[in-house]
Amino acid sequence: MDTFSWTLLIVAGGSFLALGYAAIKTKWIFGQPVENPKLVKIGGYVADGAMAFLTREYKVLIPFVLIVAAFLAIANQGSLRYQSVAFVVGAMASALAGFIGMKVATAANTRTTHAAQGGLIPALKVAFTGGSVMGMSVVGLSMLGFLVLLFLGRLFFGSSVGVLADQILPIVTGFSLGASSMALFARVGGGIFTKAADVGADLVGKVEAGIPEDDHRNPATIADNVGDNVGDVAGMGADLFESYVGSIIGAMVLGVSIAGSDAYRLKLVVFPLLLAVAGIVAAMIGVGLVRVKERQSPQAALNKGTFGAAGIAAVFSFLLSYFFLGGGAGEAAVGWLNVFFASVLGMVAGTLIGMITEYYTGTDTKPVNKIVKACETGPATTLITGMGVGMVSAFPPIVIIVAAILSSEALAGLYGIAIAALGMLMTLGVQLAVDAYGPIADNAGGLAEMSEFPPAVREITDELDAVGNTTAAIGKGFAIGSAALTAIILFSAYRQQVGVGTIDLMNAKVISGVLLGAVLPYLFSSMAMNAVGEAAFAMIKEVRRQFREKPGILKETEEPDYKKCVDISTASALKGMVVPGVVAVLTPVLVGFIGGPEMLAGTLIGVTASGVVLAIFMSNAGGAWDNAKKMIECGASQGKGSEAHKAAVVGDTVGDPFKDTAGPSLNILLKLMAIISLVIAPMLKNYWGL
Amino acid sequence: MDTFSWTLLIVAGGSFLALGYAAIKTKWIFGQPVENPKLVKIGGYVADGAMAFLTREYKVLIPFVLIVAAFLAIANQGSLRYQSVAFVVGAMASALAGFIGMKVATAANTRTTHAAQGGLIPALKVAFTGGSVMGMSVVGLSMLGFLVLLFLGRLFFGSSVGVLADQILPIVTGFSLGASSMALFARVGGGIFTKAADVGADLVGKVEAGIPEDDHRNPATIADNVGDNVGDVAGMGADLFESYVGSIIGAMVLGVSIAGSDAYRLKLVVFPLLLAVAGIVAAMIGVGLVRVKERQSPQAALNKGTFGAAGIAAVFSFLLSYFFLGGGAGEAAVGWLNVFFASVLGMVAGTLIGMITEYYTGTDTKPVNKIVKACETGPATTLITGMGVGMVSAFPPIVIIVAAILSSEALAGLYGIAIAALGMLMTLGVQLAVDAYGPIADNAGGLAEMSEFPPAVREITDELDAVGNTTAAIGKGFAIGSAALTAIILFSAYRQQVGVGTIDLMNAKVISGVLLGAVLPYLFSSMAMNAVGEAAFAMIKEVRRQFREKPGILKETEEPDYKKCVDISTASALKGMVVPGVVAVLTPVLVGFIGGPEMLAGTLIGVTASGVVLAIFMSNAGGAWDNAKKMIECGASQGKGSEAHKAAVVGDTVGDPFKDTAGPSLNILLKLMAIISLVIAPMLKNYWGL
Repeated sequence: MDTFSWTLLIVAGGSFLALGYAAIKTKWIFGQPVENPKLVKIGGYVADGAMAFLTREYKVLIPFVLIVAAFLAIANQGSLRYQSVAFVVGAMASALAGFIGMKVATAANTRTTHAAQGGLIPALKVAFTGGSVMGMSVVGLSMLGFLVLLFLGRLFFGSSVGVLADQILPIVTGFSLGASSMALFARVGGGIFTKAADVGADLVGKVEAGIPEDDHRNPATIADNVGDNVGDVAGMGADLFESYVGSIIGAMVLGVSIAGSDAYRLKLVVFPLLLAVAGIVAAMIGVGLVRVKERQSPQAALNKGTFGAAGIAAVFSFLLSYFFLGGGAGEAAVGWLNVFFASVLGMVAGTLIGMITEYYTGTDTKPVNKIVKACETGPATTLITGMGVGMVSAFPPIVIIVAAILSSEALAGLYGIAIAALGMLMTLGVQLAVDAYGPIADNAGGLAEMSEFPPAVREITDELDAVGNTTAAIGKGFAIGSAALTAIILFSAYRQQVGVGTIDLMNAKVISGVLLGAVLPYLFSSMAMNAVGEAAFAMIKEVRRQFREKPGILKETEEPDYKKCVDISTASALKGMVVPGVVAVLTPVLVGFIGGPEMLAGTLIGVTASGVVLAIFMSNAGGAWDNAKKMIECGASQGKGSEAHKAAVVGDTVGDPFKDTAGPSLNILLKLMAIISLVIAPMLKNYWGL
Repeated sequence: MDTFSWTLLIVAGGSFLALGYAAIKTKWIFGQPVENPKLVKIGGYVADGAMAFLTREYKVLIPFVLIVAAFLAIANQGSLRYQSVAFVVGAMASALAGFIGMKVATAANTRTTHAAQGGLIPALKVAFTGGSVMGMSVVGLSMLGFLVLLFLGRLFFGSSVGVLADQILPIVTGFSLGASSMALFARVGGGIFTKAADVGADLVGKVEAGIPEDDHRNPATIADNVGDNVGDVAGMGADLFESYVGSIIGAMVLGVSIAGSDAYRLKLVVFPLLLAVAGIVAAMIGVGLVRVKERQSPQAALNKGTFGAAGIAAVFSFLLSYFFLGGGAGEAAVGWLNVFFASVLGMVAGTLIGMITEYYTGTDTKPVNKIVKACETGPATTLITGMGVGMVSAFPPIVIIVAAILSSEALAGLYGIAIAALGMLMTLGVQLAVDAYGPIADNAGGLAEMSEFPPAVREITDELDAVGNTTAAIGKGFAIGSAALTAIILFSAYRQQVGVGTIDLMNAKVISGVLLGAVLPYLFSSMAMNAVGEAAFAMIKEVRRQFREKPGILKETEEPDYKKCVDISTASALKGMVVPGVVAVLTPVLVGFIGGPEMLAGTLIGVTASGVVLAIFMSNAGGAWDNAKKMIECGASQGKGSEAHKAAVVGDTVGDPFKDTAGPSLNILLKLMAIISLVIAPMLKNYWGL
């Protein structure tokens, strides 16, 4: 059996392992008890709202998917027309991952609340298991998509490295494009949904009506809880699904161009798939390691899982590099040890970025304490200080990314950068489990409050939630770091496919492209933030209207119309995601066909550099304000209800669209633009006669 | 007489014309009456404070200038050692321009207040004449510097194009470096000074003690008025001095590389100098056109001057191109008509950017009205909306800059871009006169208030000041646009000098450089904003102390210690400008010698793209918040003292360091890094053996 064929077998194994795990754990989650009837009812509202959003979102996106698929089928020539099929597969796989993740997360939330009655340990188990279904579904569906497409490619075209390079891989980039497109809409739409509901619920409920957060009398509170799922589960999942797929495809494409024998090059091309499968196994072991013992913090348990998985993944990577690539010594420009080191570099870089993110946004760290102190002199100093923290926080991660790029390139060229990116995402299964655990714990707390559980239950969910905030920050750091590397790989693959020799930075078109690219993240963020503003405004009006027209709500004699608020968030999110989405999709096409492939290359590097920095700034400023507010609420500075607290609330409200809408959407913007460029590269080559 | 020699004669003529004008007008200003003894006394405080700051700033900078000069003398080889002389000349010329501008501005302010008693027309005349001294001094001293250095170069080396290219111009880049270095410290230091005083005066005076703005009982009020001069007169002047010098030198260096006969190339090399002199004459005519008739707004008068000058400059550029370059038809790759169009392109682009800036930041425009409306729902929405406006406002100027780059490059290659940049700055004399008029009018208003003039006088100065705000916004737009183009030219010149062939955007070092460059403006802004925060905090403490220890101040039985507040602002500014300055200076050196010339090229393009966008965002967001606050104070929305007004004040306070410290400093950051790279290019070439 040839190398390609047995790689497909291994990919099949990895896929079924991950999906099988997800299926078993899904069954387990649904088998957990929920008894409190109020919890069942309110949990049902949240689950229904989340599904309603997802269904409507996908409905809006069907015409988009069909138009792009038709474009790919028409504009391409020869076998490249099948890109349209790969595109549809990518979009469907991403949608399915989002659907499974949401379905399980909205079941796990009520069960976590129920389990919290029995203490921290069972509650953590339910919440984390819920998250792990999301993690394993994402990696399993990625592998399944690769399996289907590569198998079809092998069947119709063959299995030599030449066929892979010239026919199969260009088609498979469509898979990545499908995943990216869905991710953009999921992130932007989810981000608008969640923040509109959050801001609306807080401003009218907490500030005007004076009822606590997550109070069941607040009509927007269900929408707020739905938003956590929509934004943080489905949005984050789609984002990392895309990075994962993109980094694998990018590495495969770049593996083709390494000098060496055909047999060895084929090995380099399929190596990323094998590395990914090894990562899935490591992640599953990592998930198994997450067990809280008595007198241990949930954070320590989660850390055991992620760091354990990373360690195992490093060992796997060593073995795989040695046994699979090691035999080819002298056969190619790239040695096995170099490839191994590149993969470890990615893991280390990702972890470091996560730790730095934690430093700048965590509880009781120096930068956040500075913001807490600034809150005492009012909202203006709170904002200036927070923005200063966010800005400076972008510097160390960029230095790490630069160091990772330079060292992995020195080790194994562009292929090395690609392997480093993949190394960062190798254990995505467990990383995403930890990420998705956060909103489940957050939801469980909200549900406990709304269902009027005793305070002891709420305390347990609060403890789980606090850990979730830190993991969310680290997860965002990982998402940004991997987005930067993935964009650069895709960009390198683009250059290779478009057939331009060197792209001279001194060319006026390239410089213009860089400038244009640098401003796009600002345009994009501005649109996303405007959409949040408008959506929040609509939500505020609706909540005020309900309080006014149904005075019984506050007296608990009437039930608020939760559904209406969910509808408003849904409609605003779907409306708000269209224009930024279309801008992101059309810009590379327009620049590529009007300005040419060199200007497009400049645009890609400009949007990547400017976008990564702006994304880190926004995410970290938002995270830091959030935790400064939480610290004051927990008694720091002048405590809850003080003037300092009011200033902190302003900071947090400004930070919300920063960290949950605009910032994370930028990750996708830059990846999506790079993948679109890669997909249209053959058309551009043809059009410009290169 | 050879082309080079008679060009020097014309440069001498332009220089003496501009400086002669400045001298005559200075005499006129000092001859204007100031009678009110209180006005004389308080005006004296402001003038003394400004001079004290300038003296101390220059004292701090002397060691810096000497170290850099020594470095240039030692690290360079052969005749390039004279770069150190050119550097010192540049630093001195910039310092002298700042000194003259401040001296005249702090004399013109009291005289404007006095003249305002006689009505709008005489007040405008005094204020604008004061500004025109600054404008003419800057362009005159630039020309004087060129004259001295080029004359010495001609004397010692010769006057052929080869000598100019290989020996004289590389030395003259030191002139630009000197100007840039001073500009950086002037901008950052001035920006910190003015905002520390402003925030301190407002927060304690207006908010805590409840006394009006510019009340003479407020100890920080003198520092606030000194700050307007330090930041907006000296800082802006040094900034544009640098752009002016940089764009001329950049164009000269790029003229060398155009294919053609030696005689024609020499013409292309000296053409920028001739264009600058033509611009000086046009600017002087423009200054003369500024005359207010009865029933005409001051804005219309100022517009007549700037637009009139631009029109005349276009005619001059046409004549100069035709008669000077026209004879060389067929002799070179670049035709005279193309050069003429490139210069007009620059003028048009600059004007368009100014108009767009006015749209996004002006009074009663759609974006600012949106912010006014957002103020009604509190500070959080004010900030989110303002940042959205600032972000989107960066898009059209970038499109214009890109269009200018692409079209001027199509007309005349890189030389065309350089001519466009120079075209944007051709009438700098009158542009800067209008810019510097703003703070003089602002000061005149403050002095009227402090000296307790009747409200009618204050109304007139307010009218002058309102115009000044718009001109300041437009001036910032111009400063940013020209900074972008100048940086690109210097960057092209760097590539030419460093001897690297193509700089491949796909090189990992180049990509790393772009990423690193993109984060620098954030690091830099964060440092500048932190410095403002700390300085403002020190000022707040001092003002509180004075009110507490001298209770007679508020009852007007004791005089506040103004000098102490000026000292605090001065010390904070000087302390705060050092680290960002050193970062800006050392980064290109470190990247160039450790990472190599290609990585440095990437860093330059990264810092330019990211810096320009961030600067526009910050400047415009700040300007828009400022005018939203002013609109509410003038009765829009809920009017002065309302909750909406409070929210607007928060926006304005956040916007202050954005628009007056961090934003404008970024212009210099990117120009300075480019000029440093150009200066060290021969050393890098040598070091890396290129």
